[in-house]
Amino acid sequence: MALKSWVESANDPATDFPIENLPFGVFRGAGQDGPRIGLAIGDHIVDVAGCYDAGLLEAVDELVQAACTAPGLNELMALGNDAARAVRQTVAGMLRAESLMRSELEPHLVPMAHTEMLVPCDIGDYTDFYAGIHHATNVGSMFRPDNPLLPNYKWVPIGYHGRSSSIVVSGTAFRRPHGQTRPDPNAPPQFGPTRRLDYELEVGLFIGRGNELGERIPIERAEEHAFGLCLVNDWSARDIQTWEYQPLGPFLAKNFATTISPWIVTLDALEPFRAAPFARAQGDPQPLPYLAGSQRGGFDLTLEVWLRTPAMSAPVRLSRGSFGGMYWTMAQLVAHHASNGCNLEPGDLLASGTVSGETKESRGSLLELTWGGKEPLTLPNGEQRTFLEDGDEVIFRAYCEREGYARIGFGECRGVVLPAT
Amino acid sequence: MALKSWVESANDPATDFPIENLPFGVFRGAGQDGPRIGLAIGDHIVDVAGCYDAGLLEAVDELVQAACTAPGLNELMALGNDAARAVRQTVAGMLRAESLMRSELEPHLVPMAHTEMLVPCDIGDYTDFYAGIHHATNVGSMFRPDNPLLPNYKWVPIGYHGRSSSIVVSGTAFRRPHGQTRPDPNAPPQFGPTRRLDYELEVGLFIGRGNELGERIPIERAEEHAFGLCLVNDWSARDIQTWEYQPLGPFLAKNFATTISPWIVTLDALEPFRAAPFARAQGDPQPLPYLAGSQRGGFDLTLEVWLRTPAMSAPVRLSRGSFGGMYWTMAQLVAHHASNGCNLEPGDLLASGTVSGETKESRGSLLELTWGGKEPLTLPNGEQRTFLEDGDEVIFRAYCEREGYARIGFGECRGVVLPAT
Repeated sequence: MALKSWVESANDPATDFPIENLPFGVFRGAGQDGPRIGLAIGDHIVDVAGCYDAGLLEAVDELVQAACTAPGLNELMALGNDAARAVRQTVAGMLRAESLMRSELEPHLVPMAHTEMLVPCDIGDYTDFYAGIHHATNVGSMFRPDNPLLPNYKWVPIGYHGRSSSIVVSGTAFRRPHGQTRPDPNAPPQFGPTRRLDYELEVGLFIGRGNELGERIPIERAEEHAFGLCLVNDWSARDIQTWEYQPLGPFLAKNFATTISPWIVTLDALEPFRAAPFARAQGDPQPLPYLAGSQRGGFDLTLEVWLRTPAMSAPVRLSRGSFGGMYWTMAQLVAHHASNGCNLEPGDLLASGTVSGETKESRGSLLELTWGGKEPLTLPNGEQRTFLEDGDEVIFRAYCEREGYARIGFGECRGVVLPAT
Repeated sequence: MALKSWVESANDPATDFPIENLPFGVFRGAGQDGPRIGLAIGDHIVDVAGCYDAGLLEAVDELVQAACTAPGLNELMALGNDAARAVRQTVAGMLRAESLMRSELEPHLVPMAHTEMLVPCDIGDYTDFYAGIHHATNVGSMFRPDNPLLPNYKWVPIGYHGRSSSIVVSGTAFRRPHGQTRPDPNAPPQFGPTRRLDYELEVGLFIGRGNELGERIPIERAEEHAFGLCLVNDWSARDIQTWEYQPLGPFLAKNFATTISPWIVTLDALEPFRAAPFARAQGDPQPLPYLAGSQRGGFDLTLEVWLRTPAMSAPVRLSRGSFGGMYWTMAQLVAHHASNGCNLEPGDLLASGTVSGETKESRGSLLELTWGGKEPLTLPNGEQRTFLEDGDEVIFRAYCEREGYARIGFGECRGVVLPAT
């Protein structure tokens, strides 16, 4: 295969970050003052603000150049996807093997190993959806065996607001939360560390250009407001959730921490991996017109969950599934969210809901894998798990692969459970 | 009565803003560039940034002075309530009738009529609680007549995350939202303008100093994190809510607009109006220890809802109630919110939930006043209302009154319904 980039690690077929990907992130380099926007390439980061300082972005609009020097991505996001595209294409041109700009660009490459990744933007609002029908069916089955899916599920992309302040970037450890639980309905509730700590495997969408309060976003234009995708771990305390969630939904069971992967993969990079439009089962209703205009499918993204317990030297894979089977596409989630005129803003995060498939192997939470804790998992080293224990590390990975195309990866979304205080 | 301030309007017994109140807000004056922090006094605003420029705040800490020049209150909030107290006390000293500083301060007073009020801070996260037991009982009665309160209500201060981007300041008109509803369960749902638009009368608390992720806030210290209170109108589309809210809670039924009053009344100003600790009914459980440490009551605040239809020249009062009867105090809401280590940040808004009393006269929503739309209200001019119609203006007012003390008012929280697009 011909060398595509003079950054050798970007030509490794197993890399998450070939020259076709160039996801956006925000990093802090060793000895550098503030956060800087970067693009991942192989095992390096292109320091985009450094490129600006060196005059390497002069081909792009001045407003876009200015946005590239900000300490977060919100300004660039607000300029719409053409702005991000211009930056990625300009940098990609200089990264190509045949580029004459190597010596100019090379001083602005930083080894990933020497950087710290940060939450890439100010996340004004965070919304969590419930777009995985297999997850909704699994969870519903545990609580309502005869009627697992509520009547609204196939009509309304169910979602709720999450907490933005406690969103942390991959690699951040967090404490096992305390909360109220009522394991024995005939005894008073208790307050203490959760006993049923879980992960939820989700895909997140960052909003780029926003909409004004009172304006809707037509489904045909929804993807124009999508800056890109990341991985989301919606950590959940199941025992707290069970006791608190009626009638207004999950709250303290979720808002103690939410972990995101640091790199935002653009829809441009994902375009070769578009899934066929989702085929609803026979007898299912068609979406209402405001959710039905687009004939484009979602993205065929493979998602994996790995676990490393304190007794393991390397993580083991717990599940593998596909994002292609979600009941609602990200475009439908965006259009629905703005259908009442709610203003989405650059940097807002919309998570998909837990991605679970039809098979046990593809279930995206321990709640589902252990069927509410009733069927413990036996790990290869003989350990068992129903829910997470202190010291457990959960790692999500995601990638698109297709014959004839470079692999597009998401990097990792990783978090460790610390003991309760 | 002796003149308390040389600002004459502040000595009117009916003013919301006597010298004892001095609530914080953010305004834009005629011809001024950016937003500025102000303190309300009678029918004027003290331009706090102007005071700083003139060297009138030199008695307070330098960090606090710097925070006073910001375009929003977040920095001042982050410095804790001692900082806000120092600013209010310094300005109050100069406003007193006997002060020798009148000629220095007077150039920094702006007539309210010449200003525009703004959302007073960057609201990172907005949480809506459900702390009014009469509201919860009323709403529950309509859906579950035999069991209006769910088993968790008297144990858990129920809350959920709201949308911060669509919080607007008093005076902002908003469009009647579209949404999915299913009036006939045997027919498919529809998408169109809500037919059951309602208000909800709530009190909001702005967080001052925050807590670190993973740290709890003990109930005894919860009020140290409370910068002050405002009024909140949690506009609600009841038909959208009914269809969408299960199983994850309200979403598009609420996030099209939330209106807040512009002035933040400090707990210092409210201290003379503290209610007796809430007496739970016989047979009710006592709060768990993490919610029980404080023996301090809430605040005896009178709340009113007024309505002006397009056919009216002046608004009519729909209800009057008291904040003193809420089942959970604001301190308990703060302690609960952080009980799992969720990090509250300066400028976060916590709303109380709808404030309704035992009597019909004190119900804080049309849903309750018209009992789900079944008992239309007849207004003094003969008009009827079940829910809000286009052009209706809803005005909340609130105040504390007590013999021997200056009246402390909140100003108004006002919003007009525009027709759907």
